[in-house]
Amino acid sequence: MRKSTAALADGREIIYFDHDGAPARTSHDRRELDPVSTTSQLRHDPVLGEWVMLGSHRQNRTYFPATDDCPLCPSRGGRQTEIPSPDYDVVVFENRFPSLSMHASPGVVPTLPPLVGSAPGVGRCEVVCFTSDHESAFGRLKPEHARLVVDAWADRTVELSALPGVAQVFPFENRGAAIGVTLEHPHGQIYAYPFVTPRTRQMLGNAVAHAERTGRNLFADVLAGERESGARVVASSSFWTAFVPAAARWPVEVHLYPHRQVPDIPSLTGDERDDFVQLYLNVLGRLDALYDQPLPYVAAWHQAPRGPGGEQAYLHLQVTSVQRAPDKLKYLAGSEAAMGAFVTDVLPEDVAERLRDVTR
Amino acid sequence: MRKSTAALADGREIIYFDHDGAPARTSHDRRELDPVSTTSQLRHDPVLGEWVMLGSHRQNRTYFPATDDCPLCPSRGGRQTEIPSPDYDVVVFENRFPSLSMHASPGVVPTLPPLVGSAPGVGRCEVVCFTSDHESAFGRLKPEHARLVVDAWADRTVELSALPGVAQVFPFENRGAAIGVTLEHPHGQIYAYPFVTPRTRQMLGNAVAHAERTGRNLFADVLAGERESGARVVASSSFWTAFVPAAARWPVEVHLYPHRQVPDIPSLTGDERDDFVQLYLNVLGRLDALYDQPLPYVAAWHQAPRGPGGEQAYLHLQVTSVQRAPDKLKYLAGSEAAMGAFVTDVLPEDVAERLRDVTR
Repeated sequence: MRKSTAALADGREIIYFDHDGAPARTSHDRRELDPVSTTSQLRHDPVLGEWVMLGSHRQNRTYFPATDDCPLCPSRGGRQTEIPSPDYDVVVFENRFPSLSMHASPGVVPTLPPLVGSAPGVGRCEVVCFTSDHESAFGRLKPEHARLVVDAWADRTVELSALPGVAQVFPFENRGAAIGVTLEHPHGQIYAYPFVTPRTRQMLGNAVAHAERTGRNLFADVLAGERESGARVVASSSFWTAFVPAAARWPVEVHLYPHRQVPDIPSLTGDERDDFVQLYLNVLGRLDALYDQPLPYVAAWHQAPRGPGGEQAYLHLQVTSVQRAPDKLKYLAGSEAAMGAFVTDVLPEDVAERLRDVTR
Repeated sequence: MRKSTAALADGREIIYFDHDGAPARTSHDRRELDPVSTTSQLRHDPVLGEWVMLGSHRQNRTYFPATDDCPLCPSRGGRQTEIPSPDYDVVVFENRFPSLSMHASPGVVPTLPPLVGSAPGVGRCEVVCFTSDHESAFGRLKPEHARLVVDAWADRTVELSALPGVAQVFPFENRGAAIGVTLEHPHGQIYAYPFVTPRTRQMLGNAVAHAERTGRNLFADVLAGERESGARVVASSSFWTAFVPAAARWPVEVHLYPHRQVPDIPSLTGDERDDFVQLYLNVLGRLDALYDQPLPYVAAWHQAPRGPGGEQAYLHLQVTSVQRAPDKLKYLAGSEAAMGAFVTDVLPEDVAERLRDVTR
């Protein structure tokens, strides 16, 4: 893997991750871009005890451009995109419309009530283009190419974790219009948050309590329980298992756990990364075969944050979909959105069986 | 208000709430319906420490019927709907496809991992038809009619709270196809949960901590802060204030708080109910005027649950919308759905100002 770094016309960083022997990525960004101005701010909700990110500059971000105008394709034929090079293997760059930025200035913050905390939206948001092929998908990458994405995630986790104020690094992929994706080009994102996210705090709080009660790791026990039962296992490999959780919230939900407790992607060995790639491509193939159409999904990496409880963290990837039938979506309405109480119409065991049995 | 109760053909309860002097609701349900079978079950997710409701019998529930087939209209012209009467003012009945039921039998529950708790999905799910007029909306009800809905909510809160095993009563309205509503007829729902919902537990945990720290009620302090500032107040009346929370999560979000701390709807005086109706209809008019189109929304009542922390509860109504522009929706993707970390593109102060200034 060869990593090379450059600057875009407005000063944002771009990082190429290429296979050894790929052409050098030396193209200069010839666009005239205004410097990125970021008015991101954080506010702390005293009722739920959680940070919310506010970025009023994002309302006019790019929205379903035509394929000919895709900003994530390489720059070819005189058209200048976000990636100056005429080709790339995997490329990462700072989001032009970031929710969080190291240069965040909150602009004019009105007087807030005394109970409502506020802070600049410091952090970083990156875009990860999985391939230069606009028509591809993560699930259709060759294993050695998908491995390059894993290595890019590992690199970014190390680099972003080292930025001042960053508390948690979150690589994820939103896929499909049903989940609100406005750019078709195969890509993911990375958020480097200045706080530990509410979900992670909740999970680690439970994990710490479990460790105090039993002396064991909660996630390792969950994995052991699923491997022991087998009823919800979708597929497994030497170093990883993919299963539908017994209390799944979404119509389609698959978690991929490594068999060894590691805090984050950088801690995976080369063999574990290769093995993950094989299993994940297998699972993604099953997901698209489930309804015989590309499945919209959110794929979310749970990594250890900085701070208390982090030693109980257990790296895993959570893949969820709102597609509850070929032509029906699950919506988060009253019970889920307002009360956090999920209702699901499908049994995890049935979903796991269907995913095991799909013809690909 | 006159309340009359009857049974539907499959044994489900139906309760009419009528203005005094309305015709008696004596029609018999002449349909032949199989008894409702409910395989609802609960599973406890050890990682997040939350209950999830599973109801595999719900997958084939009614989905966007034609207006002529609306099951929530009165029974007229020989067509039999869920409401046997040829007319009604407000009517409540047990959901035919409930997520929770007092008769829940979980069916065959597979062997679950030792860490995953399970229980029958005991509770109750009710449908509340706000009016017999299919083309109307809550926001277009006459005040005295909307008051009847409030009285129905109060009645159901008392009755459902008294059922064995019920821990929390949650009246809500999902409105609009964008939020997944599959029946156009103006209606809401009530969930009587056998557990305290995750969101309520979280809010009350913070409220208890705030009370221990300050001796004051968290929600009362939040309301006082918003009334003091005024920057996010949308409208107010003698007994209620409607404001956009300072750390709002949704593109449109308005909370309605009574000025007096009460635990639930039944505790409101008649004057407070009438005053709520005036303010809520005012706010709903502003919401529809915001984009000059019916706004999809979730309106969710936060009431005190049974159990610890309940004495800190403070009744309020939370109205949220995913509509971030006339033609754009906010989706819950990676950061929100997987990490619980919300990003919003609009400043609460700007939303409040627009809602104050709309021409209705």
